[in-house]
Order: sequence, then structure tokens, then C-alpha cells
Amino acid sequence: MTTLNETHDPALTSWVSSANTPANGFPLQNLPYAAFRRKGTQEAFRVGVAIGDAIVDLAALADANPGAPFDGDARAALQAGRETRVNALMALGQPAWQALRLALSRALRTGSPLQGLIEPLLVPQADAEFTTPAQIGDYTDFYISVHHATAIGRQFRPDNPLLPNYKWVPIGYHGRASSIGVNQQFPRPVGQQRPAAEGEAPQFGPCKRLDYELELGVFLGSANPLGERVPLDQAESHVFGMCILNDWSARDLQAWEYQPLGPFLSKNFASTISPWIVTLEALAPFRVAYSRDAADPQPLPYLSSDANRAEGAIDVQMEVLLTTEQSRGAKQAPAKLSSSNFRDAYWNVAQLVAHHTVNGCNLQPGDLLGTGTLSGPQPDEAGSLMELSNGGKTAVALPWGESRTFLQDGDEIIIRAHCEKPGYPRIAFGQAAGTVLPARI
Amino acid sequence: MTTLNETHDPALTSWVSSANTPANGFPLQNLPYAAFRRKGTQEAFRVGVAIGDAIVDLAALADANPGAPFDGDARAALQAGRETRVNALMALGQPAWQALRLALSRALRTGSPLQGLIEPLLVPQADAEFTTPAQIGDYTDFYISVHHATAIGRQFRPDNPLLPNYKWVPIGYHGRASSIGVNQQFPRPVGQQRPAAEGEAPQFGPCKRLDYELELGVFLGSANPLGERVPLDQAESHVFGMCILNDWSARDLQAWEYQPLGPFLSKNFASTISPWIVTLEALAPFRVAYSRDAADPQPLPYLSSDANRAEGAIDVQMEVLLTTEQSRGAKQAPAKLSSSNFRDAYWNVAQLVAHHTVNGCNLQPGDLLGTGTLSGPQPDEAGSLMELSNGGKTAVALPWGESRTFLQDGDEIIIRAHCEKPGYPRIAFGQAAGTVLPARI
Repeated sequence: MTTLNETHDPALTSWVSSANTPANGFPLQNLPYAAFRRKGTQEAFRVGVAIGDAIVDLAALADANPGAPFDGDARAALQAGRETRVNALMALGQPAWQALRLALSRALRTGSPLQGLIEPLLVPQADAEFTTPAQIGDYTDFYISVHHATAIGRQFRPDNPLLPNYKWVPIGYHGRASSIGVNQQFPRPVGQQRPAAEGEAPQFGPCKRLDYELELGVFLGSANPLGERVPLDQAESHVFGMCILNDWSARDLQAWEYQPLGPFLSKNFASTISPWIVTLEALAPFRVAYSRDAADPQPLPYLSSDANRAEGAIDVQMEVLLTTEQSRGAKQAPAKLSSSNFRDAYWNVAQLVAHHTVNGCNLQPGDLLGTGTLSGPQPDEAGSLMELSNGGKTAVALPWGESRTFLQDGDEIIIRAHCEKPGYPRIAFGQAAGTVLPARI
Repeated sequence: MTTLNETHDPALTSWVSSANTPANGFPLQNLPYAAFRRKGTQEAFRVGVAIGDAIVDLAALADANPGAPFDGDARAALQAGRETRVNALMALGQPAWQALRLALSRALRTGSPLQGLIEPLLVPQADAEFTTPAQIGDYTDFYISVHHATAIGRQFRPDNPLLPNYKWVPIGYHGRASSIGVNQQFPRPVGQQRPAAEGEAPQFGPCKRLDYELELGVFLGSANPLGERVPLDQAESHVFGMCILNDWSARDLQAWEYQPLGPFLSKNFASTISPWIVTLEALAPFRVAYSRDAADPQPLPYLSSDANRAEGAIDVQMEVLLTTEQSRGAKQAPAKLSSSNFRDAYWNVAQLVAHHTVNGCNLQPGDLLGTGTLSGPQPDEAGSLMELSNGGKTAVALPWGESRTFLQDGDEIIIRAHCEKPGYPRIAFGQAAGTVLPARI
């Protein structure tokens, strides 16, 4: 069950004044984690926590030996912030995460006696550069939007878009961890594409149908040993937090390679995440009932509970923006391609963890689960160009006169996400941004 | 091109006398790597090299500061042996691997002046315990046996067993790195299986069709940056060596879950490798032309070269053995289920690396590529029970009176591999052994 505590009090404000601006997204109630260093330096990366426009440098704070409220579990958790990634903090487990969040909330609160100690340790976000927040051991991508699965399925099987397993199995597959990054600029992938005619050799060259996929990522915190499943009602205690994920996809490579074992080179050339991990605890005020139609089957018992049904989903608003070489040259604002909401997904975070481990598979701190493309129920909520352009048949018009079926060289995709509701400060995820460079043949 | 050097001289013998026994498999010409410690201790794992029945403790040897022939690149490579896994040595690159092999060959050779220094540092293999030789970042499994692909395809599509992409694309998919281990004992996986009748809920429970898969593993050594492909003629310089791999498979979970994104929980509950990595350099005397029928298409240029055609494949003999609770109780010898040869695979090591990176995907030291099930052209060369039992229809008789369609609790699968030819010492991979425990419901 989701419980709220003093860190969720919407009335709390911070002595970091930018955190109190309603639209800022990094208020005292958020406190997301990243791995950062000062831009242009060779400093070691270390763990930072966003507050307003600034970052609390946890390594520097640990060096300053702040005492209360950083004592007990919070002290050990703060020490873990010295590491180059968040994995060590993740591995300490949920009580330590909760203790550190509470201590940070108190220390950054208006009137905190630690203001004098911490203020000199703040690094402006504008002066920071980021790397992946965690060392990602294994990356699993799911397929939890029934709207996406139906839309894609319809392009291949118009009469029977959704496979019989979809409403029973949270479909997932393993992805590539090494090619996940933040702020990626990557060359257009090259590879085999379907032969022009049956019996001919495949075509080979730069991808012609390059796409993005609007997703969220789930970072595992504490591990389960090989052979021991995580029950649904304990699943969320293993989850550290969430990020934005763009699972770039080469549709023409995918169409030719994916039978019978699934996508491979069409997905593993790059995957871009946001630098910030918003903790599951910060998302607690935005829990909602999960989305099912009356005709949908109840999940099997290992994926089903009253609590999960009542508040297994999370209300996260997302949007995809595009800039092109032309729009940047003309200083046009990015074009919004679509918006969507995580609450519309068919499966939720706890179900993904319970399913992934039901066979005894061991999850580890820093493992990343992707949600799969989070298309919503409406056509303009599609999370990929494959859907928005109806498989490349209908070009999407851009405000500055260009159009797109798939991505062109120089295109930058920016995905943003946030949570919002009346009477509560906006909780932002920041953004995942990546740019397509020309192919290197 | 494969070149032989003084380390491949078949006449060389070692002052470790067990290495000179023809059947031993760990002669001076092999020198495989593992991560080991003394059994029953809490010592740190470190890198060891097999020689006969013993292990050269590289950390202890580095401490002993042996001087020549461990100088230059070999000295740096020896220092990397202090790490808990082989990754640091892998990351040094092929010149360092070659230098260390040459130095070890000279130091362990009959008449070496270092015998007195090294002999006290040997650890009997019988006194050692092992862990995975490398920290595996990403694990990719391929599907390179056309005989396996055809046999499995025939069970699903009798008229059209091989998909149109097979002879063009080295089909591969990402697997789970966290659940790879040595000498694994793992509970039978639990999960969803096909509904008993269409429209019903899926069945749920312990896997009823648990299988092994006879594979070899390829350990990457040096990395390629994201966005930069590895050309075919440089591919093998990125490969450190090979191991045995058993890719345990839950066939009933697989049949229900694998559409449309590939196998997931049916594969990621355990994957067992051999503790020893045989270097690609040690396999040089066993290179052979690759296997193609006259009617097969030439691979696309990025997968094709004269050198690869002439000696891209490797002659590695493999066999699968089974013991059961009953046979162990009766002290029966293991039953041989099948034998096969890596040379019969459709795609080879260099092609896998070139294909994996053609889109810019970055490979890293310690990444593992699985070959996929290495079934041979004959029915008794099938690399899985799925094939040997014809999808569970024909039980395989065991010498002690039992039979199997799929694996039962208590079954142990042992896969062995070695290279052999007249006039050259036998080069062994050791074995990958794993045991199925009862499900934990």
C-alpha cells in the first residue's frame, strides 16, 4: 500500500527559492537522483539530488559530516552518494532510501539549520553534466500499452491485432544495456532490410525508417536472489524509481530480423534515458487505479491484488517534442508530436517486477525495466512515428512547413514527463534528449 | 588470418607433469583462464590459468614479481590477473593477451628457470571453486545452427521450417546476464503456460517441458565505441575466448510468451557456463572452412571474406551427458544424450561480431555471445531434448532403464567440449554442469 508521510506535505517549501516556483518541477517534494559532475571538468561523477535549479552534491555533503538529520540509515545512505552511480544507494534498500529522503527534506526545508552548511555545496544544474544515473546490469523492455500493441498489431494483422497472450502475460524481452545513455547523439544505424522482391538478397544500408519510442524506465533497487520470486505485494519495495526512456527503433531492420526471436539490431544501437531518477516514493501522491475494460480478464493471482487494482498505476503525463536542423536554424520552438499518460498502460510497475521474477530470475540494483511504448487510447496519443504516420503512409506536418514519416538526420527528439494535480507541487522527470547523426557507412 | 606461433608447437611439454598426459586436455598449448579461489574459503576470487591438474594463481605470481618472461605487455597483463574477474585482462587487448600467453608458455615449459618460483604457487584444480570468469555486462544469444533452426522450425511449420531471413541474418537476441553462473543448481521455473482450450485462462505452475541447450559461448575482449562497427577482418581481434554454455529453456513457458518479442522468462531463470575460457589463440590449430551447401547464398559483403570462408569455423567437439537421482544412487556412469561439432554451424565467430556491431552497437570486455543450440546434421547430433524427443513425442531411453522427454527434478546436465586432431595435444574446455531442483511454488 502506498503511504504518504511528512515529505509529501504540499505546504512544505525550501530555502532554495527556485524550488518553490510552481512550474519548476523540482520542489522539496520531488528530490530525484542523478550522477553528475561540473561541466567541462574531469571530476569523478557522484550522486546528486535536484532541488529547484540546483543540485545537492551528496559526496560533498557526506564530506561535510552534517550530523542530524543525516544519522542512522540516512547517514549510510548519504555515504553511498560518494559513489559514481546510484547503485550503492539502491543496494541499501527501501528503509535507507526513505531515511535519506526524509533527511534531505528536513535539511532543505525553509528554516533548516543546515542551510548555511549546504548552500555552498549546491551546484547549479546549468553547470552540470550527467551520465547514466546507474550502472545498468540488465535492461528489460516490456510492451505494456495495449493501445500501442493494438495499433502496431493492426499494421501486421488487421483482423487480429492483439495476440491471445497479451491480456495475460506482461510481454517483455531483454534489451541491450551497454548502449543506454543520456543526451545521446548517435549515427543512424546501418543494416539489412527486407529484399526488394522475394528470393532476392536483402537490401543493406542506412535505416530508412528510424523512429523513437516514448517510454518510461523503472530502476530496480534491492535485489532478489536467483530462484526466489518477488511477490506482487512486495514488488514495489524493490523499485528505486523511474526515468524517461526513448527506445530508438529502426523499423526496417526490425521487420526483416525479428522473426523468430524478437528485435535485436533494430533496437540496440542507442536508448536514451533522462539523467534524473524520480523515486517511487516521490510518485506516491499520484497513484491511481489501474486501467481495464469491463471485458478484460482478471490477471492471474500472482499479478493481482486489491491494492494493486486500487493504486497500481501512476498518473504521469508525457510529451514528445521534435526539433530539426531547419527548426533550430530558424529558432522555432520544438514541435509537439504527441502526449500520453502512463496511467493508461495495461500492466503496472508491481506487476512487471512480480512477473519478471516469477520464474526465479534475479533482478539487481540498477537494472532497468522499460515500459514499452506508452501510447494512449486516442490517435494523437501515439508514442511513435510508426503509429502517428500509420506505418509511414501519412506524413506528420510540422509547424515550420516540414513534415516527417520517420526521423531524418539532425532530428532531435525530446521526451518530457511530469506529475501534476491540484494542490500539489508539480513533480518533473526532466527530459530525455537525443539527436540522430548521419550514418557512418 | 589465423597464425600459429611457438605456443602452438605440439612438441612442447610442461614441468607440470599432469599437463603432458595426452587425455588431460589442459596441456601447455591450452592455458585457459578462470576466476577461482580455494574451496571453502572466503578468499577473494582471482584469475587462474589451467595447466594439467593445477591452476597457476596469477595474483600470487604477480606478487612474486617474476621478471622475464613476464615483462612489457606480459607484465601488465599479469597484473590484471589480480582482479576478481578476467575483465581487466580482456580490456588490455589482443597484444597483451598474446604476450601473457607467450610468457606463461615459456614459464611453464619443461626446463623453465621459473619452475622453482611458480611450483609453490600452483593450486590443485580439485581444491578450487569457481565463479563466472568474467563480469558479464551484456549477453546475446544467437541461433547459428541451421540444423537446429530447421528442426525446431519443422515442429511449428512443417512445410516451411526455415524463415526467409535465416541464411542472410545471423539471428540473435538479447538474453539475461544476471542469471548466468557456473555449476548452477536452480529451482524448476514456474510460470504461465498455454490455456488448455482457446479462450480459457492460461495454466500456471512449474514448467513441464524443461530442456537444456548445447551451446558454446564467445567472450568479448576489447570494446568498440558506440556508433563504430567492427569490420569482419578485425572481428576476431576483439574476441578473448570461448566457453561452454547451457541455455536452459522452459519450452512450455516459451511457446506461450514468445510472440511477438521473443523468449523471456523461458530462458532467463538460469544459464550455465563452464568456469574455463579457452582463448581464441589456443583454438588456432583447429580452424576450418565454414559450412555451406552449394545452394546457400553468399553472405552479404560485411559478413564475407576469403579468410573467413577458408578458416572462419572452428572444429570443436561437444557432448551432452545426463545423470539422474536414480543413476547417481546406482552409481551409473552419465548417459550420453548427443554429440555435435561447432564446425557445422551456419555462422561463425567473426560473423557474429561483425553483425552485432554493424549498426553501431557497442560491445564491451566480458560481454558474452551464445551460439544458440549447436545441433549437427544428424538426428543423434541434436542439441536439445526438444529435438531428441521430437517435441516430447518420443521418449529418450537411458541405459539404466529410465527415459526422458524433458528434464525431471534432480537431473544434472553436463556439457563437455574439446578440440582434437592427430599430432596435437587435446585442448579441453572442461565442462558446464547444472542441476534442476524442485520448483518453489
